[in-house]
Amino acid sequence: MTDQEYMRLALDLAERGRRTARPNPMVGAVVVKDGRIVGSGYHKRPGSGHAEVNALDGVVAEGATVYVTLEPCSFTGRTPPCADLLLDRKVGRVVCAMKDPDNRVAGSGIARLKRAGVIVEVGVLGEEAKRLNGPYLTHRRLGRPYVTLKLAQSLDGSIAASSGDSKWITGPGARRRGHALRAEAQAIAVGVGTVLADDPSLDVRHIEGESPLKVILDSSLRIPLDAKVLSGAHCVICCVEGVDSGRIQALQDKGADVWICDSADGRVNLDDTLRRLASEDIIHLLIEGGSAVARSGFASEIVDRVAVFTAPRLVGGLASIGDLGFNRVDQSIRLDNRTVERLGQDTLMMAEVMYSRGGGAECSRAS
Amino acid sequence: MTDQEYMRLALDLAERGRRTARPNPMVGAVVVKDGRIVGSGYHKRPGSGHAEVNALDGVVAEGATVYVTLEPCSFTGRTPPCADLLLDRKVGRVVCAMKDPDNRVAGSGIARLKRAGVIVEVGVLGEEAKRLNGPYLTHRRLGRPYVTLKLAQSLDGSIAASSGDSKWITGPGARRRGHALRAEAQAIAVGVGTVLADDPSLDVRHIEGESPLKVILDSSLRIPLDAKVLSGAHCVICCVEGVDSGRIQALQDKGADVWICDSADGRVNLDDTLRRLASEDIIHLLIEGGSAVARSGFASEIVDRVAVFTAPRLVGGLASIGDLGFNRVDQSIRLDNRTVERLGQDTLMMAEVMYSRGGGAECSRAS
Repeated sequence: MTDQEYMRLALDLAERGRRTARPNPMVGAVVVKDGRIVGSGYHKRPGSGHAEVNALDGVVAEGATVYVTLEPCSFTGRTPPCADLLLDRKVGRVVCAMKDPDNRVAGSGIARLKRAGVIVEVGVLGEEAKRLNGPYLTHRRLGRPYVTLKLAQSLDGSIAASSGDSKWITGPGARRRGHALRAEAQAIAVGVGTVLADDPSLDVRHIEGESPLKVILDSSLRIPLDAKVLSGAHCVICCVEGVDSGRIQALQDKGADVWICDSADGRVNLDDTLRRLASEDIIHLLIEGGSAVARSGFASEIVDRVAVFTAPRLVGGLASIGDLGFNRVDQSIRLDNRTVERLGQDTLMMAEVMYSRGGGAECSRAS
Repeated sequence: MTDQEYMRLALDLAERGRRTARPNPMVGAVVVKDGRIVGSGYHKRPGSGHAEVNALDGVVAEGATVYVTLEPCSFTGRTPPCADLLLDRKVGRVVCAMKDPDNRVAGSGIARLKRAGVIVEVGVLGEEAKRLNGPYLTHRRLGRPYVTLKLAQSLDGSIAASSGDSKWITGPGARRRGHALRAEAQAIAVGVGTVLADDPSLDVRHIEGESPLKVILDSSLRIPLDAKVLSGAHCVICCVEGVDSGRIQALQDKGADVWICDSADGRVNLDDTLRRLASEDIIHLLIEGGSAVARSGFASEIVDRVAVFTAPRLVGGLASIGDLGFNRVDQSIRLDNRTVERLGQDTLMMAEVMYSRGGGAECSRAS
């Protein structure tokens, strides 16, 4: 097997931590000695063993090659540094998919191994590794969570009939998949308009998984005290200065947190909300709507990925996004690295968002 | 091989006439004797041999089974009746996919064969045969052309940026496929708004194929005399009563026909236009836009099929269809029998349109 093939296995292992490793990165490791895989492991959840620890558990690793999807850590957190473990075990070669951008590591794990005479190679399947850990990388590099925007629409891009009715554009398979997206994110945000219109619970139901933190963007605290989001998983209401303190108290009495965020034209400033979420170790936020929140997400270029559920219908009603104000098509948002899933009658397209800049050059904010 | 398998071959043969058989139906035939295929053929173009004639050419068919995708004709048109040919050749059994709804046939071909002692079976792969000949069947049953509506949009359902710029949402592969749709239709319709905004030629260019008749819906004859649609293939301008006769003359001088159609709230009545086209033996009309024409097409429930090109972009601009006025999602238009093609970065979804009626029951106008 080639380095790429071993690294592919390590990436597949890392993937198993998708719903549990956060806010840590997903990491997988494979130990190969004399052409045989003698150990493998992944990082399951914060506080539990890192991938290297699990892969080396009970393995005689002297002279072995260790494939790991992220640079081994070099600092003592809840567990001792993995770079030291690899040296203790006298491994001969370490192949990493990518450096760890966390400023407590940032190349120092690799440097420590090299200084001790270990052969280190970096970059094998690096693009795949970066894509896998988009949330972790965005959090460390940009100081904000990775943002997935979910839309559920008809083929013509409507999220509701002209009257506002939106039940049900997509079918049960799409709804279950939507709940899996919730379980993958650490937090889920909607505008208060969505709460007022649909009174969603925003919890994970149709599948097994942890319900994320709920974030309601509600500049003037219009959320009803009996809104379903105030039950179930913890809820944060983001408003702006000048709201009624009695109202804040009433929401706190219901168990919610109220954050007074910076204002942007009277609305909650999304960038400020994201910074606060990042400081709470939220690395992945799912925005579920409505169209006003979607538009401000695109306007401030914080949407990294879209998850668009499309039903085989023509509803001819309210637009899923609405006016983004582009003058030319070639200034609009391009989608890249698409994957398409079929969910009963519906489809889910997931894609990375590429913002156009200036003279048509494009770049992604994510990873 | 089974009856279904032979009929599948006959349907594949019929398909070869897609761009040339119209306004006749596409028909394929396979002759099987002693378990061997001894003849096959299809109907290529009006005036040329029917499928049965081509399949039996030079074949000793006594006692053979003939698989044909449409009931053999029983009347003398430009060619003699096929039912008589099958009797002359003493075939033993005829398997048809479906009856011919043309009122000159309508079961009489089958009846003639049965009376003469031939075993006749009807309905093998009948649904596929009906789908293949949607245009022919719609023309004969409803007295109007089959209507395909083409849309080219971004994933969020925009056909243009907010400014109106629409160049180019979809890529070259999608444009070529769009020209193939033109070549398949016999006529192509747009609203005058599209002519004024984009000045398209509407001819078939990027592929080989015949350019269709061009139909411009232009109630008050706003079309400029130098519009590109007035060159190339023949053009019909549909207006309503009360237009300036000098303007009509000027357009006629440019080689166009001007039809004064019934009015619907000052606009050209689509039903009347379709009746006139049907009487000119147009069995398949492609509507290419804009959104106003699309909306009236759906409102009068004459769109049988949609061909939606979708680009991996979020443009957030003008809606491809706009407000269809449905109060509830379950009253909206359902799409059935979808096929999806990948065209470079873009996709083409073709689907049949199912209109909801009254209490949620759905039925298709087509086939």
